[in-house]
Amino acid sequence: MARPREHSTDELRELALTAAERLLEEQGSQALSARRIAAAIGYSAASLYSVFRNLDDLSWQLNARSLTKLHASLAEVADASPRARLHAYAQRYIDFARAYPRRWSLLFEHRTPDSLQVPEWLSASIERLFVQLEVPLRALAPDAGDGEIRLTARTLWGAVHGIAVLRQRDKLFLPADHQADRMLPTLVDHYLDGWLATRRVAQ
Amino acid sequence: MARPREHSTDELRELALTAAERLLEEQGSQALSARRIAAAIGYSAASLYSVFRNLDDLSWQLNARSLTKLHASLAEVADASPRARLHAYAQRYIDFARAYPRRWSLLFEHRTPDSLQVPEWLSASIERLFVQLEVPLRALAPDAGDGEIRLTARTLWGAVHGIAVLRQRDKLFLPADHQADRMLPTLVDHYLDGWLATRRVAQ
Repeated sequence: MARPREHSTDELRELALTAAERLLEEQGSQALSARRIAAAIGYSAASLYSVFRNLDDLSWQLNARSLTKLHASLAEVADASPRARLHAYAQRYIDFARAYPRRWSLLFEHRTPDSLQVPEWLSASIERLFVQLEVPLRALAPDAGDGEIRLTARTLWGAVHGIAVLRQRDKLFLPADHQADRMLPTLVDHYLDGWLATRRVAQ
Repeated sequence: MARPREHSTDELRELALTAAERLLEEQGSQALSARRIAAAIGYSAASLYSVFRNLDDLSWQLNARSLTKLHASLAEVADASPRARLHAYAQRYIDFARAYPRRWSLLFEHRTPDSLQVPEWLSASIERLFVQLEVPLRALAPDAGDGEIRLTARTLWGAVHGIAVLRQRDKLFLPADHQADRMLPTLVDHYLDGWLATRRVAQ
């Protein structure tokens, strides 16, 4: 049932992407199609071409929204000390994965085909996430070079990502649950302590 | 085309599981079915009931084979020093993920239904993998308790797993490839250095 001109383009975009997020969380990424999203909001599939051009474009836009949500969550703890901030980022990253498992998975599962380029606005949003990590790392090691800070941010994030993936799949293989809660803080602390100690020795 | 009694039960099992591994790597886990495996080896689907009872059982058996392969790879470096061994384990884990991406994914993607129990022989094989990690950790910190060693082994493995996942999906977001090669060794070293330093301070 098409109802053209009932919503502005921006309103239609918001409606459609919110419906797509719901579909994704409830039924997984294979449920994402223009037809189903359109059906969920009472529009024709054709009317969604102003919102997204194809499924890659839809995935990019959904991922951008997930990143914005994650950015906002991380920004809430930006006033803490550098180390406390990194701990909070790691915890909020895991919390995000638990609250929105399929949106979070789409961030990693969607592969842009070789024939297409990841749009600039999405790359910029990913970059901004790493900058949020790099700021406290730089505060901890003010004389570290850019390359080292970049590598450190991405390695720490990859390590935290591993705990998030395994926890989501219930594959941590730990006997008692309270031990699982210690994985993240000990990972962040040991990694940072080891990194900073290596830097001190090198100087 | 059924050819009963041409192979012994053990031979049929080996044939069927090898064919299943090939199907899995070439077409993904959704391609795993008794019908397709049987077709690949020229047997009837019914004749495979002596090999696996259902798809969960098949996944367990494939995962057990993957773990055996991984065990063997890790055992090759068991003579190195404790720290060198942990570095080699991390690298071999990543190498395994790269060489057999879908068999490796099945280790984490297969979820045993709540109504079933993971068989004892598979749990034992998973446990044996962690023991391989725990031995060098215990050599590095002989006075650490069992709980700490267990937690440390699983945290380090989770962190390495994160790098493996992101590398496989090409989501490390590093500009130059030689930087990606530094993630794993720096992760292992920083984590171990930080852990051992914390233990020294606590003593």
